[in-house]
Amino acid sequence: MPGRHHLFVPGPSNVPDRVLRAMHRAQEDHRSSAFPALTEGLLRDIRPVFGSTVARPFLFSATGTGMWEVAITNTLSPGDHVLAVRLGQFSHLFIDTAEKLGLKVEVMDLEWGESFDPQAIGDRLAEDRAHAIKALLVVHNETATGVTTDIAGLREAMDAAKHPALLFVDGVSSIGSLEFRQDAWGVDVAITGSQKGFMMPAGLGMVSLSPTAMERIETAGFKRHYFDLRPQVLHNDQGYFPYTPPLAHLFGLREALDMMQEEGLANIHARHARLGEGVRRAVAAWELRICARDPERRSNTVTAIVVPDGKDARHVIDHAYRRWDMALGSGLGRLNGKVFRIGHLGDLNEGMLLGALGLTELALHDAGIAVPLGAGVAAAQRWYRESE
Amino acid sequence: MPGRHHLFVPGPSNVPDRVLRAMHRAQEDHRSSAFPALTEGLLRDIRPVFGSTVARPFLFSATGTGMWEVAITNTLSPGDHVLAVRLGQFSHLFIDTAEKLGLKVEVMDLEWGESFDPQAIGDRLAEDRAHAIKALLVVHNETATGVTTDIAGLREAMDAAKHPALLFVDGVSSIGSLEFRQDAWGVDVAITGSQKGFMMPAGLGMVSLSPTAMERIETAGFKRHYFDLRPQVLHNDQGYFPYTPPLAHLFGLREALDMMQEEGLANIHARHARLGEGVRRAVAAWELRICARDPERRSNTVTAIVVPDGKDARHVIDHAYRRWDMALGSGLGRLNGKVFRIGHLGDLNEGMLLGALGLTELALHDAGIAVPLGAGVAAAQRWYRESE
Amino acid sequence: MPGRHHLFVPGPSNVPDRVLRAMHRAQEDHRSSAFPALTEGLLRDIRPVFGSTVARPFLFSATGTGMWEVAITNTLSPGDHVLAVRLGQFSHLFIDTAEKLGLKVEVMDLEWGESFDPQAIGDRLAEDRAHAIKALLVVHNETATGVTTDIAGLREAMDAAKHPALLFVDGVSSIGSLEFRQDAWGVDVAITGSQKGFMMPAGLGMVSLSPTAMERIETAGFKRHYFDLRPQVLHNDQGYFPYTPPLAHLFGLREALDMMQEEGLANIHARHARLGEGVRRAVAAWELRICARDPERRSNTVTAIVVPDGKDARHVIDHAYRRWDMALGSGLGRLNGKVFRIGHLGDLNEGMLLGALGLTELALHDAGIAVPLGAGVAAAQRWYRESE
Amino acid sequence: MPGRHHLFVPGPSNVPDRVLRAMHRAQEDHRSSAFPALTEGLLRDIRPVFGSTVARPFLFSATGTGMWEVAITNTLSPGDHVLAVRLGQFSHLFIDTAEKLGLKVEVMDLEWGESFDPQAIGDRLAEDRAHAIKALLVVHNETATGVTTDIAGLREAMDAAKHPALLFVDGVSSIGSLEFRQDAWGVDVAITGSQKGFMMPAGLGMVSLSPTAMERIETAGFKRHYFDLRPQVLHNDQGYFPYTPPLAHLFGLREALDMMQEEGLANIHARHARLGEGVRRAVAAWELRICARDPERRSNTVTAIVVPDGKDARHVIDHAYRRWDMALGSGLGRLNGKVFRIGHLGDLNEGMLLGALGLTELALHDAGIAVPLGAGVAAAQRWYRESE
Repeated sequence: MPGRHHLFVPGPSNVPDRVLRAMHRAQEDHRSSAFPALTEGLLRDIRPVFGSTVARPFLFSATGTGMWEVAITNTLSPGDHVLAVRLGQFSHLFIDTAEKLGLKVEVMDLEWGESFDPQAIGDRLAEDRAHAIKALLVVHNETATGVTTDIAGLREAMDAAKHPALLFVDGVSSIGSLEFRQDAWGVDVAITGSQKGFMMPAGLGMVSLSPTAMERIETAGFKRHYFDLRPQVLHNDQGYFPYTPPLAHLFGLREALDMMQEEGLANIHARHARLGEGVRRAVAAWELRICARDPERRSNTVTAIVVPDGKDARHVIDHAYRRWDMALGSGLGRLNGKVFRIGHLGDLNEGMLLGALGLTELALHDAGIAVPLGAGVAAAQRWYRESE
Repeated sequence: MPGRHHLFVPGPSNVPDRVLRAMHRAQEDHRSSAFPALTEGLLRDIRPVFGSTVARPFLFSATGTGMWEVAITNTLSPGDHVLAVRLGQFSHLFIDTAEKLGLKVEVMDLEWGESFDPQAIGDRLAEDRAHAIKALLVVHNETATGVTTDIAGLREAMDAAKHPALLFVDGVSSIGSLEFRQDAWGVDVAITGSQKGFMMPAGLGMVSLSPTAMERIETAGFKRHYFDLRPQVLHNDQGYFPYTPPLAHLFGLREALDMMQEEGLANIHARHARLGEGVRRAVAAWELRICARDPERRSNTVTAIVVPDGKDARHVIDHAYRRWDMALGSGLGRLNGKVFRIGHLGDLNEGMLLGALGLTELALHDAGIAVPLGAGVAAAQRWYRESE
Repeated sequence: MPGRHHLFVPGPSNVPDRVLRAMHRAQEDHRSSAFPALTEGLLRDIRPVFGSTVARPFLFSATGTGMWEVAITNTLSPGDHVLAVRLGQFSHLFIDTAEKLGLKVEVMDLEWGESFDPQAIGDRLAEDRAHAIKALLVVHNETATGVTTDIAGLREAMDAAKHPALLFVDGVSSIGSLEFRQDAWGVDVAITGSQKGFMMPAGLGMVSLSPTAMERIETAGFKRHYFDLRPQVLHNDQGYFPYTPPLAHLFGLREALDMMQEEGLANIHARHARLGEGVRRAVAAWELRICARDPERRSNTVTAIVVPDGKDARHVIDHAYRRWDMALGSGLGRLNGKVFRIGHLGDLNEGMLLGALGLTELALHDAGIAVPLGAGVAAAQRWYRESE
Repeated sequence: MPGRHHLFVPGPSNVPDRVLRAMHRAQEDHRSSAFPALTEGLLRDIRPVFGSTVARPFLFSATGTGMWEVAITNTLSPGDHVLAVRLGQFSHLFIDTAEKLGLKVEVMDLEWGESFDPQAIGDRLAEDRAHAIKALLVVHNETATGVTTDIAGLREAMDAAKHPALLFVDGVSSIGSLEFRQDAWGVDVAITGSQKGFMMPAGLGMVSLSPTAMERIETAGFKRHYFDLRPQVLHNDQGYFPYTPPLAHLFGLREALDMMQEEGLANIHARHARLGEGVRRAVAAWELRICARDPERRSNTVTAIVVPDGKDARHVIDHAYRRWDMALGSGLGRLNGKVFRIGHLGDLNEGMLLGALGLTELALHDAGIAVPLGAGVAAAQRWYRESE
């Protein structure tokens, strides 16, 4: 199809030309004496994106899914009891990972579209006098429902309960786009990947461990190899990796970090907030429902939109793709057919989003959901004018 | 600024990623035995884009401006009398070129925004019994006003007047986007460049000469060198160029021609018609005036939009650029400040254009022209739905 | 430094411009209806490179190291007894992986530079009447020593011993460059990565399982998640991946496979043999010793060269890198300082290699190893002339 | 063919990946308020490459051939008498250009392979008491013969003769690679193109005019348009161009100038001298003759090598191309079949050149010229060792 494809899934996000260019580069010897300068710069500059000055970041040739495994196998032991909250497909998969690896997972199930109540978790932890619960597994931004959870509040509740459980936070669709404060929130393992806020192709997993979490890697009982952090520590300390790193992605990360520094993290977060609000206002103008129920918890990186009863969200997505050359996110798991999702994260601006909202209106019509054409666009326009 | 820049000037147009990739390639020896395959394929496949099977195309390292000089110096002689129509900045510059090179140019001046009446030109030619007029210089698509002229009608009028003047047609902003029928319309020299319908960066001039025009290159009285077609003929016949060709552009042209073949010329023309009508409907919804007066002659590649009295189009352009990261075309020459232009040509689709219309509405507001937000977008959406 | 860097480590190999260009592309939705065409084409076309029509290939966002883990955890169970041959650093690391994951590894240790004797392994298997040995772990091409082992002979010996152990073969530095016949050799799990014969950046792991190995994935006792093949099977069957695939690498693999098909696998293997022999003749002209003792087992993808007693191979590498802008492979593990390695695999031709040999001679001189300048180059030239 | 093509023609030179990457970029509006920053930076930073602080540079979408026309038509008038030296194909073509454009060219013909004697030219000028000779046309580096002429000496001779003729110097294959001192040498018009020392694809012509030459552009009698410097001055003064500039090339030039600044012009010149001497030592080892007779005048950017009587240089070139994937330069004009040329300019280093020399030896053998294999490589190696 002529013209630019409109990619509005909540990841992979649009890779800026600068990053693609940076990855289009001859390979190098990852054991050369010049290599540590690259490694060290990346590990230094990635820290602020996690909101940390004391945590230790690691880079893997893997996707975010693998980073769940890194977190678990490097800090826990088989059979450990952990507490997890399920509020969408990705928190579900995080739990699934933990179970597959042999943890005993206690699940707090919420309606999909809800966020968790930190106090409820705090209460559960307070009950756990014996500190049987070794870790808490949550997502910061549930990509399936478009809900951003309250990690700051969770940390308060954990502290109030005086519970020593490690806090694992999946920030795959938040870190780099939404404010993330690993140190301030006491996140022990923060998990993300390259293909969302970091504006790169998938293939680079990133994880950041608090000093507390770092202490556990020597005692963790999981047998592990590829995802073992111990050889990473050893080699990273010298500026190298224990096995061939995904060099093109490292080059891309260098450029992405440079872009993030140039724009400024606070500006990036503010931009996502502003762009996201435009999408929400469009949805309101369409008189459709946002899957995330609590307005305070609606995500600035992805909005899941509920189609009216009797309609199939897959038709919206299908028409958008085939007729209008736009990729929208599908409803995952139990939301399949009920919601479609607009990703609004990464390298994005108002014009791109207005185009996407315009196409979404057309695809809604195609699927028999006759929102007033232009109404969502106009709502977003008004917001962009007044909010700048 | 984050996100993709919105380039909506009427040239350079957006270069598709495929073409940029094709140009990102190591250089080669332009005198190698493998080189003619490239040259020959380009010269073969460019012909249908000009709507010709008998004309001879040439490629130059130059822009469209240089192609005017190619046309004149290879078929005419200093002091020759030519007839030209001025109806906008580019027809004005074409005339200026002719005058600078020493032709005697008889100018028919029209209001900017008007198209020419073929009959009026035919009448003037009919008066010229002595055939003093050696050539007619017109633009097919006046990029400054967004007017597409009637070359088929002009040919009819010339034929009716039985006048042998050569017909030079500037198709810089039409060829590759609008239907162009060099053979059927009896165009003797068709002129274009790489940066519009051919979807490439500027830097490659293209010209196509009818058999009649080709006969003149031996007798043309202009002293010339760089733009001389004689050595081109000699070398092109062997698959080479008389001097180092702009290789990256040749690689790009190969890919652009492949893309044009894949989409099909008729489909490309229909797409431009459909996308252009969407812009016109948006302008109507804004209750603004289109510079091109005759609805039949409104261009499918560029629309010049007149701002209301007392407003300055430069403010629209300036806000669009600085605040919304969109480049709009400025009013040229006497239209400066009075119109702004939206280019809608080349590698383009509905979503890109809806985004651009949305941003244009915002920029209009910024400049004090309070069109109803979303109204133009909605008008375009309705048209895209019903016209597909 | 000006000019092109000379990358002659045995991986990453030089990525051809075509592959880099193919990877320089906008991202897409990996859940779209168009996506399976990509997945299916890759999984279909990768099979012949493994020399198989019946094995099942898998692609992972990971490096070759991770593929060892895939092999082990998907077909074996913790505590299983396996037999492995250690003849260099990579076979050592393969063994290390197995031990870290909890296998009981029986190691046959060879001198580094030797290949294994299939009969000796067959004898050991024959002793194992109880079939306690569940798998055999070998490398096809030991990248550290430049030794290519005899997998065909090994299979014969295994068959003669009538032993049902699974055969795992690391083909990281062979598959795609050297002949590899998974079906004919009865390889149960063949392991490789993207950054050598596949001519891509690191970051894509590939593994191919025989039908026998595929049967084991349901009964394998390892808890696993990221590297679990079961969800891969499920999703690959539909043309998808269980989690976000490394899209840029998939695009690159598509192009690499196209290039391999264009050249032809037999031609690729013959080219590596021819280029490798040139290197060996150069080493002979230098009167240096090749680490691989048996001339029949010298690798066509990498040559490890022993420096004379009293000299330090690290100096050769260091001078090559700093003074001549060439990366040579270092001696790994116990060979550190004793050998340097020239990688001659992937997208390579005579001219590139002659340049590399010329620079190697200079670096040898710099390190105090006064080989006759030009002698190695001349030996290679003679061979290239006579062998074509 | 697998592996990297070996491009060793004396232009186009190898374009560094950095420059290709810089050219791989979305287009922009060349009339935007941000554009002048690009223009001004280029025009500022190109000046030192010409060795000037007072001359005025111009950039054209054209090749070097067009720059001859710029020089002539902007400073002279039809029928003007000029003096030119012909000592190879490019000085021949420069003369041809002048004649085609209507100058009266007095030619001093030299053997091809000779340089001019400044004194002889000075003597001729001294005879011209009436100052009928308006300009002197010479090449600084005759690409066809590999001769670098003595422009400093020529200026001295001109000054001694107290002759006011303008000095036009073609520096297409010198500027950016060899020392060029426009101010010190009193060069009035210096001419070059993008595809040699500037390490870019062909398509950008560059010319630099002394203050004296600049005065002439108002009085020059040539009718001209595309190559007219007057509108360039007008627009460049504002940071713009009179017509659409070749934007991809401007992006490339920005990167090339950055690279040149990073390496340093003096280092670039020294590198070319060093690399070129290596080629000459190789030719000596082959016992072949260099076309350039005077050792002092042998070019550091290109070496033309004479094949023995009875041999055909085209066979060398043809074998190099077809069998060894290397492009060598052919003998031009009367040197066709008698010489082949190795270009050694631009983004080049020792390893690239050793590979090229190795392949050249093979191609010489193929063509029946049995130079001792490796001998040329060894001679170059020895020089590179001792000269660093």
